[in-house]
Amino acid sequence: MRFFVTGCAGFIGSNLTDRLLAAGHQVVGYDNLSTGQQHFLSDAARSDRFTLIEGDVLHSPTLAGAMRGSEFVFHLAANADVRFGTHRPRKDLEQNTIATVNVLEAMRHNGVRRIAYASTGSIYGEAQIFPTPETSPIPVQTSLYGASKISAEAFIEAYCEGFGLQAYIFRFVSILGERYTHGHVFDFYKQLQIHPDYLDVLGNGKQRKSYLYVQDCIDAMLLAAEKAQHKVNIFNLGTDEYCEVDDSINWICQCLGVTPQRRYDGRDRGWVGDNPFIFLDCSAMRALGWRPRLTIREAVIRTVDYLRNAPSVVAART
Amino acid sequence: MRFFVTGCAGFIGSNLTDRLLAAGHQVVGYDNLSTGQQHFLSDAARSDRFTLIEGDVLHSPTLAGAMRGSEFVFHLAANADVRFGTHRPRKDLEQNTIATVNVLEAMRHNGVRRIAYASTGSIYGEAQIFPTPETSPIPVQTSLYGASKISAEAFIEAYCEGFGLQAYIFRFVSILGERYTHGHVFDFYKQLQIHPDYLDVLGNGKQRKSYLYVQDCIDAMLLAAEKAQHKVNIFNLGTDEYCEVDDSINWICQCLGVTPQRRYDGRDRGWVGDNPFIFLDCSAMRALGWRPRLTIREAVIRTVDYLRNAPSVVAART
Repeated sequence: MRFFVTGCAGFIGSNLTDRLLAAGHQVVGYDNLSTGQQHFLSDAARSDRFTLIEGDVLHSPTLAGAMRGSEFVFHLAANADVRFGTHRPRKDLEQNTIATVNVLEAMRHNGVRRIAYASTGSIYGEAQIFPTPETSPIPVQTSLYGASKISAEAFIEAYCEGFGLQAYIFRFVSILGERYTHGHVFDFYKQLQIHPDYLDVLGNGKQRKSYLYVQDCIDAMLLAAEKAQHKVNIFNLGTDEYCEVDDSINWICQCLGVTPQRRYDGRDRGWVGDNPFIFLDCSAMRALGWRPRLTIREAVIRTVDYLRNAPSVVAART
Repeated sequence: MRFFVTGCAGFIGSNLTDRLLAAGHQVVGYDNLSTGQQHFLSDAARSDRFTLIEGDVLHSPTLAGAMRGSEFVFHLAANADVRFGTHRPRKDLEQNTIATVNVLEAMRHNGVRRIAYASTGSIYGEAQIFPTPETSPIPVQTSLYGASKISAEAFIEAYCEGFGLQAYIFRFVSILGERYTHGHVFDFYKQLQIHPDYLDVLGNGKQRKSYLYVQDCIDAMLLAAEKAQHKVNIFNLGTDEYCEVDDSINWICQCLGVTPQRRYDGRDRGWVGDNPFIFLDCSAMRALGWRPRLTIREAVIRTVDYLRNAPSVVAART
């Protein structure tokens, strides 16, 4: 099958691209290389079943042209940082919502019928039910990131109804693993490289978060695309556990053999719109036979190991 | 108080403007006069507390300049027709979602803190619970109109969290009354003017719909803005009843003294994305002391009476 992967040079996109190629598929990757890193595609580039097209999801003609002949779209290109929405209020709208409509229009233009979309557990805002099911009450959005992602979900669903598309919408917890380049494990690792004797922590360390290993995430997406047959298929993706920020700091410090002084800013949230508790009900995905292979602790350790062996990746993100 | 009303020349906007002026407020009305009709503002124009600024909500500099000095925004400008989304897929995104972010940015720019937004019961898609409460499970969108409106809601909420705004989000059923210019009562009326002997009906006549009289709608919005004090306040607005399309045809025909042959297209939906049953739980709004004054039947009859006395309005919409 011929897949079209937006954000193919990113963390999840490049891992997915490698997996699709390993399974014998053709992949057209689309990335503007703004946050994606071309060396993440060095394995893919050795395959004659892979084509990289450098382009922006906000440039519709390039996007539509690149998608021609593809059968299934993985739309992963996004502004993936939940924290800085209020610094750049239009960025989430443009890169997450408008870009997704551009992808949908390109699909319509090219007669591509199936799409998998990387949404986020952040769309639940401050959830009232834990673990949080896909069928939660309509949430009140607390971040521009969450708002832009639930908006993209909404347009995807409307295109399914209006134009006969089939969609797979995945609401991720934070993803960890090889090629991970942003988020709090990255920030802590980087701080401790610079000053192993102390660690500045946003919040009070008690925020409860969930993580999932990138290969487990990809397993789930591929299995869902194979097995789920509704017009609109929505799945939470995470492990059946959560940890406190302090737990992950413990694991990172153990890996690195450091005992920094922890300097909390003391708030109960890490930033405006931060959700102090993320724990998703993933039983729908599990009902298809999926099981994550790594625990949160194992995923954190695997990620720290990766970062230790990828100093250029760490240095590139300042 | 100084109010800023987008879509001030529209059906609901012009009625609201008149009410705000009658209550002694200042109103800056903003409209591009694309579907709004300037003669709806002929009463308002006689007040020295009213200013009309002709501009588009998609033009941010004009919008931001016009809003300066206002204290409360009623954002009613929208693409209000749910039916034709698939003919013009970007229109809902632009005129409902992007335009709303433009309004939010203009508020931020001008330090305006409070917004009331005209959303829609269409955001519930094909609801599973009747009457449908505000806290329904996250719906799957079935129309681009609904998608664009729930997206606008999401961004408004994120701005409340990120920038300290206070919002009133109203999910309307179909609104009827003086200055009503689109929707199925309008279409039926117009058809019967042209050919009183037959009536073409989208669907099978059994779709169950809810309606609310425009002055009851405005009563609710003004009362909520006065009494509800949360950061984000969300209210369904409708009567505690619904009718079948056939019921409203009966009332219209009785008003007009005609007995047309009804030519149903026979589908269970009027159009792609049509919701065959809309019936909202409005107990949250009622708990603030609001009661609609007109029943659905009375609102339909009032609307037909209005259209009979406004042949130029009917003629202007071809």
